[in-house]
This record gives sequence, C-alpha cells and structure tokens, in this order.
Amino acid sequence: MAKLISVGKSPTNYQVAILDKAISKKDLLPAIKTYQKILIVSDKGVPKKYIKEIKSLIPQSKKVFLHILPEGEKSKSLKSFNSILEELANLKFDRTDCLIALGGGMVGDISGFVASSYLRGIDFIQIPTTLLSQVDSSVGGKTAINIAQGKNLVGAFYNPKKVLISINYLKSLTEKEYKSGLGEVIKYAFILNKKLYKILYSNPKLVLSRNTKILEEIIYESIKTKANIVSKDEREQGVRALLNFGHTFGHAIEAKNNYKNISHGEAVVLGMVIASKVSYLEGLINENEYQEIKLLITSMGLDIDYKKYKYEDLKPYLMNDKKVALGKLNLILLKKIGSAFKTNSFKVSNLRKAFNN
Amino acid sequence: MAKLISVGKSPTNYQVAILDKAISKKDLLPAIKTYQKILIVSDKGVPKKYIKEIKSLIPQSKKVFLHILPEGEKSKSLKSFNSILEELANLKFDRTDCLIALGGGMVGDISGFVASSYLRGIDFIQIPTTLLSQVDSSVGGKTAINIAQGKNLVGAFYNPKKVLISINYLKSLTEKEYKSGLGEVIKYAFILNKKLYKILYSNPKLVLSRNTKILEEIIYESIKTKANIVSKDEREQGVRALLNFGHTFGHAIEAKNNYKNISHGEAVVLGMVIASKVSYLEGLINENEYQEIKLLITSMGLDIDYKKYKYEDLKPYLMNDKKVALGKLNLILLKKIGSAFKTNSFKVSNLRKAFNN
Repeated sequence: MAKLISVGKSPTNYQVAILDKAISKKDLLPAIKTYQKILIVSDKGVPKKYIKEIKSLIPQSKKVFLHILPEGEKSKSLKSFNSILEELANLKFDRTDCLIALGGGMVGDISGFVASSYLRGIDFIQIPTTLLSQVDSSVGGKTAINIAQGKNLVGAFYNPKKVLISINYLKSLTEKEYKSGLGEVIKYAFILNKKLYKILYSNPKLVLSRNTKILEEIIYESIKTKANIVSKDEREQGVRALLNFGHTFGHAIEAKNNYKNISHGEAVVLGMVIASKVSYLEGLINENEYQEIKLLITSMGLDIDYKKYKYEDLKPYLMNDKKVALGKLNLILLKKIGSAFKTNSFKVSNLRKAFNN
Repeated sequence: MAKLISVGKSPTNYQVAILDKAISKKDLLPAIKTYQKILIVSDKGVPKKYIKEIKSLIPQSKKVFLHILPEGEKSKSLKSFNSILEELANLKFDRTDCLIALGGGMVGDISGFVASSYLRGIDFIQIPTTLLSQVDSSVGGKTAINIAQGKNLVGAFYNPKKVLISINYLKSLTEKEYKSGLGEVIKYAFILNKKLYKILYSNPKLVLSRNTKILEEIIYESIKTKANIVSKDEREQGVRALLNFGHTFGHAIEAKNNYKNISHGEAVVLGMVIASKVSYLEGLINENEYQEIKLLITSMGLDIDYKKYKYEDLKPYLMNDKKVALGKLNLILLKKIGSAFKTNSFKVSNLRKAFNN
C-alpha cells in the first residue's frame, strides 16, 4: 500500500506517494492520463533499467521522449537548461504536455526549473531515485540551476503535479549516496520530529542495512515534516528557514572544498554538529543533548569531525549565504532535540569558539 | 495627479500609477524605500537622460547600479539573461534588493524573468518608456526571453511590485514606435472597452498629435481593461485569451517577415483586421461593423492592408502558436465591437476566405 502525503496549498498542492516496491502502472497512469507528450529527463548515472521500466508503464498512445544529461552537478547549468528547453520546443511541446524528472536532486532541480519556465510553466512529475532527493529536493517546490557565482542562485518556486517515491531505487545506491540522504533524515529528527528521532535512535542497524519497512517509516516521517513546513511557507519567508539547519555551515564546507571530495549530505551533517555546538555554547541545549546528537549521527555511520575547518576559512562563505538578509547572518539553532528556531542574535564569540576543538 | 489602478490578486497584487508628467521623488520613493541595492536594467535605445533622471531620484544612501543591454529584440536572449544574473550575483544582491526595468517591452520582459529567477525571486519595478510597454507588457506579469525556436517561449508569470507610467516618455518616441503601441490600445477598445472605442473614434487628431490629456485617458482605459482581465486570470487559463485578439495572425505575420520590416504593433493591427474579417464571414458581426473597424484603424494612421499575406504562407506559423492546445487552433473573434470571445469552432473555409481579397 502506498503511503500518501499532501503537500502545498491549493491550487498548486500535490501528492507524494511512498511505495514499498517498484512503481507500477496503477501508480503512474492516473498522474499522466491527460498528457499527450512526455519528456523524461534523467542522467547517465541513473541505471538504464529504471528508465526502461518507467517508459514501459506509459501507454503506447502517448509520445515519450528521453533527454539524458551527463551525470553530476555540472549538468545543473544554464547550458543544460537551454538544451532541454530547445528539445521541448523542437518537439513542439505545448501546455498540455509534461516532463518527468527521473533521477537525483540535480535532475529534479533542473527539470523543475525548465518546467516552470517553458511556455511560462508546464506540468512536471518527480520520480526521485536517491534517498537525498526523495526526502529533500523532490518535495517543496524549489527548483534551481547553478551559475558561476554559486549553487542554486537561479531558479523558481514551482510545484510538481505528483511525486512518486519508490523505496526500490534505494537498494542500488552506493554507501556514500545513501548516507548523504541519511543526513537530511537526521535533520528532520533534530529540528521538528521527535518520533523520527526515536525510530533512528532505536534502529541504527536496520537503517544502515536499508530494511524496507524502516526505510518506508523514516521516509514517510521525513516527508511529513518537510511537507508540514513547506505547506506553511511555500516561498521561504518564515518557518521554512528551519530546513536550513546545518546548511549554512554545510554549504560553506562544500564551497571550501570546491564541491569535491565531500557530499552535500556529509557537509550538512558536519554543519549540524557545528550548529548544535553553537546551540550548546549559547546555553540553549545542555552538554548531554549535544553528546546525544553526536552519538546518533555516529550510529548512522556518519562522520562528525569538523576540526579541519577553521572559522576564518569558512567565514567568507558564510556571509555569502542566500539567507543573509540586510547583511546579517541568520542561523538555525536548537532549543532542544526536536525543536529548532531561526536567529541572528547570537554571540559571534560562540560561533568562533565552536570551531576551537 | 497620478491615476492609480490596482492589478492582480493578493498577495502579489500591485499598483500601476499613470502620471501626466515626469516621474518625481514622491512617485518613486515609496516604491523603493526598503531596498538597499538597486540594479537599473535598460538598453542603449533608451535616452540617457531618462536613466540619469531616475538615478537622480534615488537617495544617496542606496547603492545603484546600471546594466545597459544592446538595443533590440536580440537582447531578449539566454545570454543577456545570464549576464544580468551574473551581475546580480557579483554585486551580491540578496532577496531584500531590487531591479528596476527602465525601457520598452524587451527590457521589461527580460528584467522580469531575471527578477523571477534570481534567488528564486526578488522584487522588481517596471518603468515602461514606450506606449506599447505602457499599455501592454508592463502590466499582467508575463515575463519572457526568446530562444532559437521562437519568441517568448521561456519565461515566468511574475508580478512587479509597482509600475510607474509617465506620459512624458511618449513625446520622444518615433512615429513607428508610437503607432505600434496604438495597435494595442485599439485592441482593448475592440475586445472589451466601448468607452475607449468612443474616445478613439471621436479624437483621432488628438491621439495622433499625442495630446497629454487624451494620452492619459486612453492609457488609463487600456490598462483598466488589461488589469480587469489579468486579475481574473493571472496564469492564462481562461479569459486572458481575449488579449490575443489579432495576435495569432500578427505573430504569424511577424514570423513570416523574420521579425524584420514590420513592428509587433503593425502586425497585430493586420491580425485584428483578419480576425474581424473572419468574424464577419462567420456571421458574428455585420459588414458595417467590419467597415467601421477598418475606418477606426485607418483614422489612427495605421495600415489595414494584409493582401500580400496568403493563408498558405501563414498556416505553418498559425499552428505553431503557443495557444494551440491539443493540436487545435484557438481564435479570438468578435461578437460585436467591444466584445470578443475565444473559439476553436469556426469554418476553416472562412479562415481561408478571409485571405481572398
């Protein structure tokens, strides 16, 4: 049985379906029945059989086309944006047709931005194939590409018509990809979902062995938390900021590494440890809670050691963050485990001190 | 006294101010008071003194930057889109800053699309300097760029925060530019505004001599009509289609001419005559009404002779129109002067016959 979660506000709300097996006709057909033409956007890293499987579910009466991008973040470019747009125009797609984004976050982000801007908006469906994209980027309507000056600087808030999440896809992920997604799952636990926290805390082995039932539960809880937040704040003007827990530091760490050697998830995990340390130094959580946070992260097989990063090295990147408003850095800190808040009134000395260990 | 018109639905509604003199501090300052940084986007065809005037109104406490595009439709490209985005990123604009589009439709369209997508949306203000952009593209939230396959194929529905329209700018337009805008004014009269029709019909000389009072009236009536339509249908799913009266044929004529030698307005005027002829052949309006339509257009100094265009020449472009849905051509026809409707049930033989004269 699919677990269903509704996201967003009418008239652009949509449904996320979480499936404990492969996507079937019964899951896909209701979502595509009105479209004449469908462009599946994917990348070379997505197993070919996944693309074949989805194609085979679509009735012969519809015209299906493929656009396969090179793998990796560098495809999230204005060049790829243009190439997909030109393909849609050459194929004479109109506003009654649709895109399917089949892949990880890169594919979803660029496909969504293309869908938002081709003819000023056509429908798209997300079929995320990585844990990170399933629990994070496929839900919430953020689409984006990168430009020379930074990641995700250009995009749109644009909701998909449907998100289909199959746990099946997760079995073939590399350890690094899988753990990158786990970082975001842990984030939801820390900022707002105590139930998810308990599931993770009590079942580290089942999580690491990718047990189907546990995956279904933690994905459901993660998306429920994200859906709850983004439905309240579709345009990132308030509570949605909580989703950036660990991200300001994480993005700085990624940038410092030139987006090499460290995954987004690994960087965010280090960012969460730093933000937790700041929360502790600010007297918001106590030392036991800080230690428990580190313990949970370690039990998920993730690295918590950020001592090779110095405050002075990360500072320029921190001030470059999209969430800097009127020149002030905003941080998401913890009041307790399962409860986060946004603030720009913290002691910079504590920020500095968090790196002295 | 500025005449004010409210456009759109909360929370993205905005105000259009129509001024019978140059823009003053009192008009501009309330619109920009919260912004720290402002990028004025304009093009080489806009008189430098207009740019200087606007700059001089902005308080010294704000940082003002200029981005001047080459003149002409070819600047409405992905390349210019990228160049403005990179400039914003280099200048570290954040979501509390804004763009001002100062120029004609090209400047407004590309600036709006940049504003919609930089950081997934920053504020922008429209200061249209041509009659066409004042009565048409600056109002309604359509933003766009062109790609190789066609005009306006990529963009967003994205409302400005404010539109400032000064009639002063119109005095320096060339005859061709001015008449291009008149075409759209006439369109509003035909499709929905009988009062505007009467003003035009009774005052052709004052209109052609660009009398300030008449300009204020016809711009006000035009924008009121457009505001009324777009507020009901922000995303072009219904009544907004009426604004395309004459445009399907007009776009085909522009494309047939490779977008040279004939202005958008001139092409739309011919398109309106063709659509009126089809309306007459379909038995919707009578011959007197059809003749009166041509008389009004002629009295505005505009050309009504489309006999050099053959149906077979325009047909491929007609079927390429963005408003073709499920392969069917939609036309806007007239029930009477001042009342238009959308239909895809007309005799193709009448469409053909409209060109046999």
